[in-house]
Amino acid sequence: MLLTMRDDEELGRITLAQVAEKAGVSISTVSKVLNGRQDVAAPTRVKVERLLETHAYRRTTRAAREAPLIELVFHELDSNWAMELIRGVENVAKAHQASVVLTESGTRHAPGPEWIEGVLQRRPLGVVLVFSALPAEVKQQLHSRAIPFVIIDPAGDPDPDVPSVGSANWSGGVAATRHLIESGHRRIGIITGPDDMLCSLARLDGYRSAMSMAGLETDPALVQYGDFHVEGGYDRAMKLLALPERPTAVFAGSDLQALGTLEAARVSGLRVPHDLSVVGYDDVPVARWSSPALTTVHQPLRQMAEEAVHMLLRLRAQELVTTRLELATSLIVRKSTAPPPE
Amino acid sequence: MLLTMRDDEELGRITLAQVAEKAGVSISTVSKVLNGRQDVAAPTRVKVERLLETHAYRRTTRAAREAPLIELVFHELDSNWAMELIRGVENVAKAHQASVVLTESGTRHAPGPEWIEGVLQRRPLGVVLVFSALPAEVKQQLHSRAIPFVIIDPAGDPDPDVPSVGSANWSGGVAATRHLIESGHRRIGIITGPDDMLCSLARLDGYRSAMSMAGLETDPALVQYGDFHVEGGYDRAMKLLALPERPTAVFAGSDLQALGTLEAARVSGLRVPHDLSVVGYDDVPVARWSSPALTTVHQPLRQMAEEAVHMLLRLRAQELVTTRLELATSLIVRKSTAPPPE
Repeated sequence: MLLTMRDDEELGRITLAQVAEKAGVSISTVSKVLNGRQDVAAPTRVKVERLLETHAYRRTTRAAREAPLIELVFHELDSNWAMELIRGVENVAKAHQASVVLTESGTRHAPGPEWIEGVLQRRPLGVVLVFSALPAEVKQQLHSRAIPFVIIDPAGDPDPDVPSVGSANWSGGVAATRHLIESGHRRIGIITGPDDMLCSLARLDGYRSAMSMAGLETDPALVQYGDFHVEGGYDRAMKLLALPERPTAVFAGSDLQALGTLEAARVSGLRVPHDLSVVGYDDVPVARWSSPALTTVHQPLRQMAEEAVHMLLRLRAQELVTTRLELATSLIVRKSTAPPPE
Repeated sequence: MLLTMRDDEELGRITLAQVAEKAGVSISTVSKVLNGRQDVAAPTRVKVERLLETHAYRRTTRAAREAPLIELVFHELDSNWAMELIRGVENVAKAHQASVVLTESGTRHAPGPEWIEGVLQRRPLGVVLVFSALPAEVKQQLHSRAIPFVIIDPAGDPDPDVPSVGSANWSGGVAATRHLIESGHRRIGIITGPDDMLCSLARLDGYRSAMSMAGLETDPALVQYGDFHVEGGYDRAMKLLALPERPTAVFAGSDLQALGTLEAARVSGLRVPHDLSVVGYDDVPVARWSSPALTTVHQPLRQMAEEAVHMLLRLRAQELVTTRLELATSLIVRKSTAPPPE
């Protein structure tokens, strides 16, 4: 193991020998802890971890790996986004002869302790987390091993101290709504996401601004909060279509909610786009396959994943300054929108 | 490194020392080759590989890994199946404290040479390949390192000497067709997959047998070969709907082809299921989300992936005898089928 040890404790830095001395263990034990080995008693490990943390120990160089890995962590894999993101990470990893280790954490609140142990043993080039947070302890563990991490956060709500890649949700909301206004719609419903997610609020604000810029009022009855899923979209669309004065167009906030809206139109005997226009959000593959194909806001998921890996590699090379990257969204017009019925 | 060396060359087996002697290199060089290390000159590596192969060297035990890996290889990740399979592999891997390394080979004809080098260095518990073949050389490399592999092959066309998991395509074709016949349909079109894939032929044969068992003739004009994609399904469905005597139902051979068929019905002014019944195949998530939701044949993709990992672990433990597992398919009735119009 190659370690460059610096003797600059005055700057809060500490050498392995100093950690070993303070912890009352051997240097080899400290080294085992650093490498995530399990043959160290838990109390010793905790003691050493704390010293590394307190003194902000940073491994400054390391042995080159022959089979480099990039860790990719999802909180859930059934998201319709997951495949696009996986492909983006795979693309860039492959170009750098790295392989991708995929983990589903099962929770938005960071992967479990076995995960971090495995990561410390595998010593990856870096970690990409999708839409998930990391507890301070885990951040410090990665930091002290010089393993960089980046969060891909389409919801636009990352921790401020964490490098992240997102996309322009507010602009997407404006573009979707403007397209409907320019097609002649005046009564436009919106189904946004959960009210505790920044991306939902940004898209809704984009909708409101576009309405207001066109001199249109926003009827509160036309605003629904959904859950980004098909069934939720169906329920909210049924509510909108049951209004005494129903909207002639719905900005559905996600492609899955747009699919639910298509089904709500079908069971209500409305033809899309003749009787009702529908705009999705995300541009996942299913948006092209629905009947009719969805007009939607393209979120460049694959490119976001690619940028996240580039960011990792630049963090490793200590080249990176910017730690929040926001990619542009764009409107894709397909067949689910048309002028309102006469 | 723990290696049990056997001295039973008469049985075609050979020890590392014997390989080293024959190759004129040190035992440590042979060991480096076995572990996929790159600091061995290529001609030496090839010579040692050949000797290992010729003498059918098998590593019979190994050091326990602290962070075990399972390799999962897809030929392409944009398949609609991929996510279900990934989740199945993740489920079982997680239960065994293993992580999953994901690779997209980009070709049906096995991953490239960098891949096998990486695998030999990572020393995974085993390799799961989706719908892909392995050249004899790679099989032998894995075999000599005692790294088991299993192919998940929904197309039902695996190499006979390779452990594999598939599903019952013929029975699925019978079930889909029978459901339409029992709903009262007599003129039933089929869009199957490519004519060089066994799964397409098995589903088509299932359709023909169900028709014949019901005393119905199969009009060759009602049989179309597709490509399993949405656009292909659309094109073939347009042909079926343009027939002088059009079918009242279409067994679309895959969910994506069924989506194309829904779109063909829409642009032809036909309502599904009132004017036209449609049955898919696979039961990928989008089948639930289409409008109307698809009646389809459930292929237990996640379970197939889970079984593939179980099979790997049993191969490692040398418990396994059966090497071809075929899981049952089942019909899921949703909203895209109904009796034919009067």
